[in-house]
Amino acid sequence: MTQLTASMVEQVIRQGVPMAEDIDLKVERIDAHFARARVPFQAKMVRPGGTLSGPVIMSLADAAMYAVVLGALGKVEMAVTSHLNINFLARPKPEDLIADARIIKLGRRQAVCEVVLFSSSDEDNPVAHVTGAYALPM
Amino acid sequence: MTQLTASMVEQVIRQGVPMAEDIDLKVERIDAHFARARVPFQAKMVRPGGTLSGPVIMSLADAAMYAVVLGALGKVEMAVTSHLNINFLARPKPEDLIADARIIKLGRRQAVCEVVLFSSSDEDNPVAHVTGAYALPM
Amino acid sequence: MTQLTASMVEQVIRQGVPMAEDIDLKVERIDAHFARARVPFQAKMVRPGGTLSGPVIMSLADAAMYAVVLGALGKVEMAVTSHLNINFLARPKPEDLIADARIIKLGRRQAVCEVVLFSSSDEDNPVAHVTGAYALPM
Amino acid sequence: MTQLTASMVEQVIRQGVPMAEDIDLKVERIDAHFARARVPFQAKMVRPGGTLSGPVIMSLADAAMYAVVLGALGKVEMAVTSHLNINFLARPKPEDLIADARIIKLGRRQAVCEVVLFSSSDEDNPVAHVTGAYALPM
Repeated sequence: MTQLTASMVEQVIRQGVPMAEDIDLKVERIDAHFARARVPFQAKMVRPGGTLSGPVIMSLADAAMYAVVLGALGKVEMAVTSHLNINFLARPKPEDLIADARIIKLGRRQAVCEVVLFSSSDEDNPVAHVTGAYALPM
Repeated sequence: MTQLTASMVEQVIRQGVPMAEDIDLKVERIDAHFARARVPFQAKMVRPGGTLSGPVIMSLADAAMYAVVLGALGKVEMAVTSHLNINFLARPKPEDLIADARIIKLGRRQAVCEVVLFSSSDEDNPVAHVTGAYALPM
Repeated sequence: MTQLTASMVEQVIRQGVPMAEDIDLKVERIDAHFARARVPFQAKMVRPGGTLSGPVIMSLADAAMYAVVLGALGKVEMAVTSHLNINFLARPKPEDLIADARIIKLGRRQAVCEVVLFSSSDEDNPVAHVTGAYALPM
Repeated sequence: MTQLTASMVEQVIRQGVPMAEDIDLKVERIDAHFARARVPFQAKMVRPGGTLSGPVIMSLADAAMYAVVLGALGKVEMAVTSHLNINFLARPKPEDLIADARIIKLGRRQAVCEVVLFSSSDEDNPVAHVTGAYALPM
């Protein structure tokens, strides 16, 4: 397996998930079992009341999970999300949204991940907390 | 409370959630505690391998939940998703994706909903199953 | 594969899960992709306020999921719950608790199930709604 | 509000949840937004194959969530679990099971918690990961 860099992971995701292109997804860091992804703020994502919409939050969480799996396993195009659970905790601010994903458990059949999302100026006050599982090719 | 029609619900969602506009979300039916929403097929949503991406599925599920809550309660702009759990069951086909949402429990504080998503030509083989909760204004 | 009857499924579960014995678990019906299980009311299960405790509800849900998988696949001792998501909807009454489980999707690698739990005198007012996945031996 | 000690929290839970008594639940530590609970190993909890059963794991997770909420808010008997999501990660060993719970978000209406469970000799290899929400009295 070739270790993928953050920019290679970003490219794989953008090619594979058209909505990642729409939200201008950035993959900023890939470490062992860790990934950071970002959605740069765009006015068009804003809901009435001034917050980012649920779909943007979920799209970023899903992309960050994919990023951390790609970082750990290399290019596994057949891996698919089998399950995702999200708790919305606070309204995001009208600014960049960041997602830190880590692998909780890398098994033979699935990778279970956790993603914490927060507004870029307020790291200690998470916007959403996600757990999910990726089914791995066997 | 004024009962909202399907097209009024569609309009409220499109105004509130910019991504609903991107995926050309349709609200087709609003009944008591039931809603049907649809994402018309667009080539740009397709992943390599020919299926709709996870974010499209989650965006439609979230919109269908919002639709069923709007249908039951009228225009409640302050209602927000507090929690969403999704099981991905099968790859969607490259065709319209439909979401049938129903309210399992309408409480004072929250509405708990279930959404079943399927490809338009294959109603008996769900693509995803979602449960979620909407926190209601009090 | 030998098709298991409801009483055979009950026996397998009671042998495998000691807590099933404690709550006097009954398996009442096994159909294709459907199972009904019951916890007879016992005073010792009651919380202050007169309702059954969360662990009783979760134990019954887990047993009903196991029952429906055993009913569909025969005796698969190595099958394990990989994920369970529960929404608590209403306080159960101080009476028998029933769980209706069905398989939403039987795949090669996992069975995704849905369980609806209700008090025996009030079938239309669910106490809890559960989705979960069973990892299947391969 | 009176700050509760670990032994006071243990007593409240044992009085409120009969199954906590059955599994001999211990509350070992209560800090700000953190709680540790333990189930001492008992042979009767063991499944064929030598692991603790799912209901024991879920009962401990639920108790640890209740403990961390009691620790943060004092005696709130009307608080109830509204939602619980569990990923089973590894088979527990035949030994004490420990649950570390923390509050991710303490809102006005609900407390969202995370619980990590592990066998007492193997802290780095979690057995299960749980997120859940407690509805708070208002």
